[in-house]
Amino acid sequence: MKFDILTLFPAMFEGPLTESILKRASEKGLIEVALHNIRDWAFDKHATADDSPYGGGAGMVMKVEPIAGAIEAVKAKHPNSKVILTTPCGRPFNHQVAEELSREEGVIIICGRYEGVDERVRTLFVDDEISLGDFVLTGGEIAAMVIVDAVSRLVPGVLGSEESAQYDSFADGLLEYPQYTRPPEFRGEKVPDILLSGNHAEIAKWRRKEQMKRTLASRPELLDGIEWSKADKKLLAEVGIGTSEKVTK
Amino acid sequence: MKFDILTLFPAMFEGPLTESILKRASEKGLIEVALHNIRDWAFDKHATADDSPYGGGAGMVMKVEPIAGAIEAVKAKHPNSKVILTTPCGRPFNHQVAEELSREEGVIIICGRYEGVDERVRTLFVDDEISLGDFVLTGGEIAAMVIVDAVSRLVPGVLGSEESAQYDSFADGLLEYPQYTRPPEFRGEKVPDILLSGNHAEIAKWRRKEQMKRTLASRPELLDGIEWSKADKKLLAEVGIGTSEKVTK
Repeated sequence: MKFDILTLFPAMFEGPLTESILKRASEKGLIEVALHNIRDWAFDKHATADDSPYGGGAGMVMKVEPIAGAIEAVKAKHPNSKVILTTPCGRPFNHQVAEELSREEGVIIICGRYEGVDERVRTLFVDDEISLGDFVLTGGEIAAMVIVDAVSRLVPGVLGSEESAQYDSFADGLLEYPQYTRPPEFRGEKVPDILLSGNHAEIAKWRRKEQMKRTLASRPELLDGIEWSKADKKLLAEVGIGTSEKVTK
Repeated sequence: MKFDILTLFPAMFEGPLTESILKRASEKGLIEVALHNIRDWAFDKHATADDSPYGGGAGMVMKVEPIAGAIEAVKAKHPNSKVILTTPCGRPFNHQVAEELSREEGVIIICGRYEGVDERVRTLFVDDEISLGDFVLTGGEIAAMVIVDAVSRLVPGVLGSEESAQYDSFADGLLEYPQYTRPPEFRGEKVPDILLSGNHAEIAKWRRKEQMKRTLASRPELLDGIEWSKADKKLLAEVGIGTSEKVTK
C-alpha cells in the first residue's frame, strides 16, 4: 500500500517513520511512504505556498495551485490513490475507516497548516475528509502519522502473527482485557490467581468477562451493536449485564 | 508547561518536536518536552522492559518496574505533574480535555507498546486515562504527539495573535468557515463575491452562516449545546435552522 504525504514540513516525519513496525513494513515492501514538499510546486520566485485569506482575518491560508500541482504529480504515478484531507468537518476516524483505507491501493494525505487550505482544494480534488477527533492540531502532519500508523498495521503481513491485530480493542467490538507480566507481586498488588492457574479454559472466560466489564464501565454504547454467542450470553449474565434490553442508559 | 514522555522509542519524537510552532514554544521556554527512555530503568542485565503475559497469549506486555522507576524519577523533579496513560479505555480526548491539561503544571505521558502495559501501572500510578479515538495505534508515541501538540497550542503565548486559537473549530462550538486565498478563480472555481466586496459586516455574517451550515451538514449534534445570541438566531433562521426545537434527529 502506498502513502503519499503532501506537507510543508517533511522533516517532521523522520522519527515516526523510521522506527519500529512501520520501518520493518517499509523494508519488507508492504507499505511505501513518500513525502512530498508542497513548496516544490510553488512556482513564483519566493516559492509561496500560503497567502492572506480573502475577506480578511488572522493568519494565512494554503494556496490551491501548489497543492493541485503536488496531487497531480502523485496521481500521474498512482492514479488509483484516494485523496484525503484531515479536517474537523470530516467523518470521524475509527477502526472501520482504517480497515476500509487498508484495502486501498494507495492514499494521498494533504497536511493542512495555518488557517487551513483554500476551499477549492476540497471541492476539486478531495475524495475523503477525515476528522481525527474534536480537537485542533497545529497542522495535519501528526494527523497523517496517526492515519499511516493505524492503517499500516491492518495491511496483511505488517504485523507478525505474534502481534496480530485480531485481539485489538475494537476489532471484536470490546475493549481489551487487563494484561499482567512478572513479577507476580509488585508493591502489594498481586496478579489475579486465575492467570497463574494454568487452566486455559478458565483464563479465557475470565478475560472475556473482564472485557465485558471494562466495556460496560468505560464505553457501554459499544455493547449495543454486538451479536453475542450462547457462551457469551452466559458470561454476560455472570457479570450482570442483560442482553434482551438495551445496555446503555 | 512541562511534558515528560516515557517511551521505548525516543527517536520517534525527533521530527515532530523539532519543527514549527512547538520548536518555537520550546525555544521561548513556554513548553518543555523531555523524553525518557523506559529502558534506562530496566535494571536486569538485558535491560528487559517487556515480558510474556501471565495466563498466556500472543505478544509482550510492558513490565511495571521500569515504568514505575521512570515515573518516580520524573516526579522527584516535577511532583505536581499528572500521569497520563493513553488507552482505548480512557475518556475521549477533545478540545475541553486539551484545555484542562493546558492548565496543569506538567503531564507525564506513558507510551504503551505491544499488547499494553502491566495493569499495575494503571492501578498504582495513573491519574488520567485518555483515549484518542476508536482505533488502534502501533504504540502510544503518536498518541503522545497528538496530546503534546493539541495542548501546547492552548498554552498562553504559544500561538501568536496572528494564529490565535479563539477561531478554531470547536473553540466556539462550531466548525470553521471555508477559507480562500488568491487567485480569485482557479479552474473555473471562483472565490465567493462577498469575500471580494470589502464589506466587513456582510463578510462576518456570511462566514457565521457558513459555520452554521457546515456544522449542520457534518456535525449537527454540536449545535445542540450552544447558547445563541439574538444576532445568531436571525442568521440561523436565514439558513433554515430552528432554535426552539432540537436540531438533531
